[in-house]
Amino acid sequence: MLRAQPLTGSDLLAHGTIPSTAWLVRFNQRITYPGPFAIALFLARQSKPVWQQYLTSLNRRIEACRGFFARPPHTARVHIREPQQVVEQDNSKTNPSSTITITAFERSPDGGKGLARDTRVRWALEEVGEPYEVRLVSFRAMKEPAHRALHPFGQIPTYEEGDLTLFETGAIVFHIAERHAGLLPDDANARARAITWVFAARSTVEPPILELGNAKLLEGDKPWRAERLPLVEDRVRGKLTQLSVRLGDADWLDGAFSAGDLMMVSVLLRLKPSGILDEYTNLTAYVARGEVRPAYKRARGEFGSGFGFCDCAGYRYRYRYR
Amino acid sequence: MLRAQPLTGSDLLAHGTIPSTAWLVRFNQRITYPGPFAIALFLARQSKPVWQQYLTSLNRRIEACRGFFARPPHTARVHIREPQQVVEQDNSKTNPSSTITITAFERSPDGGKGLARDTRVRWALEEVGEPYEVRLVSFRAMKEPAHRALHPFGQIPTYEEGDLTLFETGAIVFHIAERHAGLLPDDANARARAITWVFAARSTVEPPILELGNAKLLEGDKPWRAERLPLVEDRVRGKLTQLSVRLGDADWLDGAFSAGDLMMVSVLLRLKPSGILDEYTNLTAYVARGEVRPAYKRARGEFGSGFGFCDCAGYRYRYRYR
Repeated sequence: MLRAQPLTGSDLLAHGTIPSTAWLVRFNQRITYPGPFAIALFLARQSKPVWQQYLTSLNRRIEACRGFFARPPHTARVHIREPQQVVEQDNSKTNPSSTITITAFERSPDGGKGLARDTRVRWALEEVGEPYEVRLVSFRAMKEPAHRALHPFGQIPTYEEGDLTLFETGAIVFHIAERHAGLLPDDANARARAITWVFAARSTVEPPILELGNAKLLEGDKPWRAERLPLVEDRVRGKLTQLSVRLGDADWLDGAFSAGDLMMVSVLLRLKPSGILDEYTNLTAYVARGEVRPAYKRARGEFGSGFGFCDCAGYRYRYRYR
Repeated sequence: MLRAQPLTGSDLLAHGTIPSTAWLVRFNQRITYPGPFAIALFLARQSKPVWQQYLTSLNRRIEACRGFFARPPHTARVHIREPQQVVEQDNSKTNPSSTITITAFERSPDGGKGLARDTRVRWALEEVGEPYEVRLVSFRAMKEPAHRALHPFGQIPTYEEGDLTLFETGAIVFHIAERHAGLLPDDANARARAITWVFAARSTVEPPILELGNAKLLEGDKPWRAERLPLVEDRVRGKLTQLSVRLGDADWLDGAFSAGDLMMVSVLLRLKPSGILDEYTNLTAYVARGEVRPAYKRARGEFGSGFGFCDCAGYRYRYRYR
């Protein structure tokens, strides 16, 4: 596992105002956090006092990414180039309501495989092209009153947007889908069915998968582990068999890709380490179709074309890069 | 437990065209299924050939209610009077899209305590004053292709409305709430938070409650039952403690009663038989506030003012009674 390193002013200065692709690739091999990236790209085009002022907080964020966002070198390919244009620019001091901030594990229990529940929210935000900030939360902080005020059950992710605070990934993904094109069909009946699949993923398919996780982790040291595990696995298979029958040879669960597929793929991904998913050819292909979507890749830190943004000296800069 | 008896033509004729209140009470002490009730009230005002023709299918439905809808006498009070007015009348052969049909267990595993998941959908429909039909489904029929076409996971309830078929109670309740006033706040942020509670009830609070049910039923004969049960109960307590802290001394989870409360109360009700709910004074009171709502009582077959409807000779008759 590679580790993040503090970024110094000379890192930027050494490459002039526009970092070369080679430098970006090398940089990405050390950290894969999209925020600092976009910001580094942007700051490289700013005056020295501006980026020096920002560098302190940037380094704090990079430090917070240690381990969590780092990935093995073979997955560390990037396609980032210089910023192409500034799409939008507004003063975040006078209009703070447009900031979207989500929370994620400071150190994810899966070691950065993207199986934590913030990935599905990032994915939805990337699908609709909405910029967002990620605040990393330690396990200790998750249990403290400040985080409980955001999430009564002390989990991640949360979603903050101006005065609004949401928890529950189903609700957050629906909230995003309802406000942007691309994740819910226009037809009223098709829309209701897509929402049904969001609920089905969260309430019918994910619970036995979590129960399997509990059986392995929370009850891994119990004497009944070996005998009980096949029972719990069969409960998972029960749901997967039914889902597999319904999906058949279709690409997505109900017509075009929707928030329902986003959530179902996210839920099924949690099952990958168990090997059970491999028993269902059409579900494996279904999950793979989700994983190759550019927005999913961006959510996992692999950038193709997309958006970046940063707050700097009281301004929000939001720009498109490719 | 009282049992349903077949209804005969003389039952209606003996009381003339308008059954007396006394007769209705006596009738209700035998069956508590709202459909036949409303229909009996209506048919009593029709010509003999019309109601004779309908009586056969009515008796089949009453027969299907045996046990499930019957309740002990002390809860069998009713306040139904004659139909007051016909609110709407349309030909269901030319406009079938307005029929709402939900499915429920032919014989509920809880013996009619209302803990099956159709109750929450009935409750939502009663809150918004929308008439509906209930189709009872046997366990065998639930596993057959015809039902699987409606519900890929072979469960109840389903929701049919014209061309639309939904499953997942979260999605159905949301669908109802979105289309009628009363279950979601007008304010956009409050609405998003209410939807969050629908998800939280289904995806965070209900899963450990279901796991407790599985531990007792599916694994009730396993050697680990006694030692494992306290672990599972503590997982339930974990969620209830967090929910209890968030609720505090408020009446409802976020301002006025919403679809989120309807779902959360419905989920907590499933925990009543375990006694765990009694450990949380504010949650017990919260559930009780849900149970005394007139719409909840109607969903459970206790009628105050409300609506009735029936399909007869190709026509839909929808009327208000009180």
